[in-house]
Amino acid sequence: MTIRVGIIGTGLIGEDHGRKLVNVINGSAVSAVTDVNIARAQEVATLLGGARVFDNGLDLIASDDVDAVLVTSIGPTHAAYALACIAAGKPVMVEKPLAPTVEECERILAAEVAAGKRLVIVGYMRRYDAGYKQVKGALEAGTIGDALVLHNVHRNATVGEAYTSFMTMTDSMIHEVDTTRWLLGEEITAVQVVPPKRTPLAFPHLQDPQFAIFTTETGILSTVEFFANCQYGYDVRCELVGSLGTSSMTNPGLSATIASGQLTERVPADWRERFGAAYTAELQAWITGLQHGQIVGPSAWEGYAATKVVEVGVEAVKTGARMEIAYVEKPALYR
Amino acid sequence: MTIRVGIIGTGLIGEDHGRKLVNVINGSAVSAVTDVNIARAQEVATLLGGARVFDNGLDLIASDDVDAVLVTSIGPTHAAYALACIAAGKPVMVEKPLAPTVEECERILAAEVAAGKRLVIVGYMRRYDAGYKQVKGALEAGTIGDALVLHNVHRNATVGEAYTSFMTMTDSMIHEVDTTRWLLGEEITAVQVVPPKRTPLAFPHLQDPQFAIFTTETGILSTVEFFANCQYGYDVRCELVGSLGTSSMTNPGLSATIASGQLTERVPADWRERFGAAYTAELQAWITGLQHGQIVGPSAWEGYAATKVVEVGVEAVKTGARMEIAYVEKPALYR
Amino acid sequence: MTIRVGIIGTGLIGEDHGRKLVNVINGSAVSAVTDVNIARAQEVATLLGGARVFDNGLDLIASDDVDAVLVTSIGPTHAAYALACIAAGKPVMVEKPLAPTVEECERILAAEVAAGKRLVIVGYMRRYDAGYKQVKGALEAGTIGDALVLHNVHRNATVGEAYTSFMTMTDSMIHEVDTTRWLLGEEITAVQVVPPKRTPLAFPHLQDPQFAIFTTETGILSTVEFFANCQYGYDVRCELVGSLGTSSMTNPGLSATIASGQLTERVPADWRERFGAAYTAELQAWITGLQHGQIVGPSAWEGYAATKVVEVGVEAVKTGARMEIAYVEKPALYR
Amino acid sequence: MTIRVGIIGTGLIGEDHGRKLVNVINGSAVSAVTDVNIARAQEVATLLGGARVFDNGLDLIASDDVDAVLVTSIGPTHAAYALACIAAGKPVMVEKPLAPTVEECERILAAEVAAGKRLVIVGYMRRYDAGYKQVKGALEAGTIGDALVLHNVHRNATVGEAYTSFMTMTDSMIHEVDTTRWLLGEEITAVQVVPPKRTPLAFPHLQDPQFAIFTTETGILSTVEFFANCQYGYDVRCELVGSLGTSSMTNPGLSATIASGQLTERVPADWRERFGAAYTAELQAWITGLQHGQIVGPSAWEGYAATKVVEVGVEAVKTGARMEIAYVEKPALYR
Repeated sequence: MTIRVGIIGTGLIGEDHGRKLVNVINGSAVSAVTDVNIARAQEVATLLGGARVFDNGLDLIASDDVDAVLVTSIGPTHAAYALACIAAGKPVMVEKPLAPTVEECERILAAEVAAGKRLVIVGYMRRYDAGYKQVKGALEAGTIGDALVLHNVHRNATVGEAYTSFMTMTDSMIHEVDTTRWLLGEEITAVQVVPPKRTPLAFPHLQDPQFAIFTTETGILSTVEFFANCQYGYDVRCELVGSLGTSSMTNPGLSATIASGQLTERVPADWRERFGAAYTAELQAWITGLQHGQIVGPSAWEGYAATKVVEVGVEAVKTGARMEIAYVEKPALYR
Repeated sequence: MTIRVGIIGTGLIGEDHGRKLVNVINGSAVSAVTDVNIARAQEVATLLGGARVFDNGLDLIASDDVDAVLVTSIGPTHAAYALACIAAGKPVMVEKPLAPTVEECERILAAEVAAGKRLVIVGYMRRYDAGYKQVKGALEAGTIGDALVLHNVHRNATVGEAYTSFMTMTDSMIHEVDTTRWLLGEEITAVQVVPPKRTPLAFPHLQDPQFAIFTTETGILSTVEFFANCQYGYDVRCELVGSLGTSSMTNPGLSATIASGQLTERVPADWRERFGAAYTAELQAWITGLQHGQIVGPSAWEGYAATKVVEVGVEAVKTGARMEIAYVEKPALYR
Repeated sequence: MTIRVGIIGTGLIGEDHGRKLVNVINGSAVSAVTDVNIARAQEVATLLGGARVFDNGLDLIASDDVDAVLVTSIGPTHAAYALACIAAGKPVMVEKPLAPTVEECERILAAEVAAGKRLVIVGYMRRYDAGYKQVKGALEAGTIGDALVLHNVHRNATVGEAYTSFMTMTDSMIHEVDTTRWLLGEEITAVQVVPPKRTPLAFPHLQDPQFAIFTTETGILSTVEFFANCQYGYDVRCELVGSLGTSSMTNPGLSATIASGQLTERVPADWRERFGAAYTAELQAWITGLQHGQIVGPSAWEGYAATKVVEVGVEAVKTGARMEIAYVEKPALYR
Repeated sequence: MTIRVGIIGTGLIGEDHGRKLVNVINGSAVSAVTDVNIARAQEVATLLGGARVFDNGLDLIASDDVDAVLVTSIGPTHAAYALACIAAGKPVMVEKPLAPTVEECERILAAEVAAGKRLVIVGYMRRYDAGYKQVKGALEAGTIGDALVLHNVHRNATVGEAYTSFMTMTDSMIHEVDTTRWLLGEEITAVQVVPPKRTPLAFPHLQDPQFAIFTTETGILSTVEFFANCQYGYDVRCELVGSLGTSSMTNPGLSATIASGQLTERVPADWRERFGAAYTAELQAWITGLQHGQIVGPSAWEGYAATKVVEVGVEAVKTGARMEIAYVEKPALYR
């Protein structure tokens, strides 16, 4: 059974996911696309081999040609599409964040709870990365004992002028928020942000790098150094320190070259290189799940919790103080 | 367009490839299977979601439900099936070796040449391994200068009693024969085998480990240490030494654990773990090629050349002397 | 010219240094020893080939047989001996800390300034470690641009019951205080301590691990995870993040073993294994300097600054708040 | 007790050793020097702080100011000086080779046997390298089972025109001959040399790189790739393959830098950088031994055996055939 996916938002990430659904994933097709830029939607439809182009997302969601929806439009539009999918009873994968505000996320939770079933997943692809899974595996196997501290670095070559200090939290560290919750199996209950010395190679309005300390329910610290303009490449690593040992995720290594007095190994250039396989695994898991009538992927609760943390995190960027985080009660649907 | 594959030979590797074609590869289905053990063929047909079971390979090849054929039966049967596919004008992927004897391989070459088009590919999956591709990339980029020496190690945890000293050449080092040819872009023109001290942990009839030196047209040495019973895991690595530097393929590394006074990294357990992604890439390239009317993969000539080298290599195992290798002229079809 | 050293304090570290001065260092002898435990002093004197045993440190300092003094007694005794050496005009190497209180350190500064010349060095041996020097070299060469963040981990297998939460600062992180100042060439102006979840494998009174953030004059963050009971070995590493790249100090690696499905590399067992060569280099630099009439090593100012930071650091452990650090003016003698 | 060393031959290596004996080693002085170039001997004497300059080596050996002799003159002079030292009853360290011909080595053995005591050691410093010692340790600990194959690479940046194809054996691979014997505890009984493709970056008369296979008494293979003009640096590594696992010596790693899309680690520039610490350890062991009345270091037998292997090895370079190696009976003095 082929799952016919409709894509809302045909920007860079929407096109990339579309190509995977058409050329790489087993069991999927792209039957429909839409975008605020209809010409762009038409172009991507052609690239993907002839999907139907819709004027708007709501019509796409309603179409009988669409079995499942992929929302890759800009963040502020996510909630409306997710809610429409829930209303239509259609599975939907929303790229992160679930929605930019906690209020929107809570409405999505309420709608799913009212519908009595899960339909929404959120695109936290790092959970499908082989390296992160090995770290989680070392914890679960007991090799490193009890988790105590998680160190994260997240570095990106450069960002444009539109990227702001608050986006270090809402667009970038939100990934570490999710991996922290997932790796440790605990909610984050506090956050403090401590700004390091600024790089001279960023736009003046941007605090870059940024350093945050997240604390979980049982007191585990998750430290995050995020650096938007590190210049040298894309570098995401972590070390999980336990009571008996540590597990570190390194950059994937396949080969080494020696020349001119140095041994060199490649560092990934960008997120597509580093997490391309994780995006594929995430999409395949979703599609295979749908073929078997299951919703596989991070739930709307995971999306809500991450948005909640970064909403408080933005305040922490402003104040520099340690901010506590309180959640709504977790509905039974997500337990 | 879905490529409907018929599988001849539903042993371990046939089942594994079948699962990929059904669950992982984009654009393929398995429409037919057969095996000398019909009960086994039936079992795999069910596992793969209901392929039609044929009494024999020739009927399967002839079936209108079969667009392309995958031959994963035992080596001595390969030539007959490949020739039948050529006669039927159907694309065929033959697991390595193309055929166990040079005489059979030459008949396949002759048949393809007579047919005037390529239909056959051979399953040398290492060409699709990301690590090997990085080594080839370093050579092609000029980073390491001219290739001079290639060092290979190929180690396997254990083998059964049926595994013989000649199979070190025909079943195992044949992979290094192919990667040597592919990495260096040259034919192998001589081979010498020098037996090391035997491990006490092999059956008494087996020379294990084994050491071979292959020489190419321009004099590049490719050394191979093959160890069938290394006990500790599956370990395939190489270092290509050039006039300006070297490029080494390491075991894939994603994480490291520190505990009990040691940093540890995982070594693959077996070929499925180590080359699983390469097998997937190989099958996907073949299927995507077929969707576009192209034959993508190592040609029958590549299969012939590897079988030629290991046929002489078996003599080299017997004699201990350096043996020269001469090839038939390469038909225009393969240039 | 052989430098005849007198050692005050013949505990573990005093004996270790003494053995180096007698057996490893070029140009030194141990002519005198003393200890609060005279029997122990006698024992070490014999081990070292017959040094003279003194009743007390002041007599040892005054002896004509002593060209230079090594103070390896407990911290509270350091200041008195350093001051006596300054009064006697004799070079002295004081193991870290220079003195446990800022008040004592300031008196030593004042005495040296009054004497008009440097005589005191402090045993911050990490400055002589080849790995730390490579990190400093990468910064000084411009390879990584401007320093922005320094991440440190400092882990120790186990500590005894006498080790307190304040000692995480005064005895352990004091090393990172010194290396931060030395690597970055800036004073530390603020410190905050954030306690992670406690390991179940420490005595109940001890906050372990501990996490601190030091800020330098220009705003560079130096983060330190210190873990007294990490169980697995001794593990000191750092990563210096600059505006163009990063430089990381790894555990020294010389070999790797593969067996039982894993590649393993040794992690040092303790500080003697990890920093043995640095202690030797530190002592040799001091002795060779003395042979040429020079005082080579971290000055009393360096000792004062480190003690100042950890004195405030202890308050930071108590309060959890970010504490500012103000220094006396740096005398010309140390510029 | 200070050991007063007389140095015969004050070229690069003689000066280097002299500096260590004066500035780094504990317990030694350089009391006398000589060289065929007396002006050079005078220069080095001054550098070393005023050693007495002798007209010739025999007078130096005879001097009452000389407790022990270091022979760092050219190879053809070694035997005469070693024999004179034995006649004078003085300890002597001869840089490798003990002597260039087997006949000379046998005369030295005979002289020591006649004298009834060991006085000679040979400068095979790799035995004192920490990395090689870890590999030997892994074998002796049983971690890797029985030794079966030893792979060696030995690469050097460039050599001058005077360096010949035979010197690949007599000057370079002689190090692997010694480390093979020492690591495995067995004599080498055969050698074959197989020339790889030549680098375009060597003088035309030189076969470079070179590849040799040494076989030991029990059949262990020791393969050696030697590359005199690898361009990129100095690179000496080995992997010892056993019946249960392997142990590899890597280039010493202390730090890694990431910049411009690459992680880089330094490769040593030359043998002084790579083996400087091993030379120091070798000299210190010799001097400390002499202080205790012991001769510590590779014996004349070790020197003889290495010269024997490379003498046959030169024939193997000429013939390309596997050549057997037979030794004189090992005198009781060396068992």
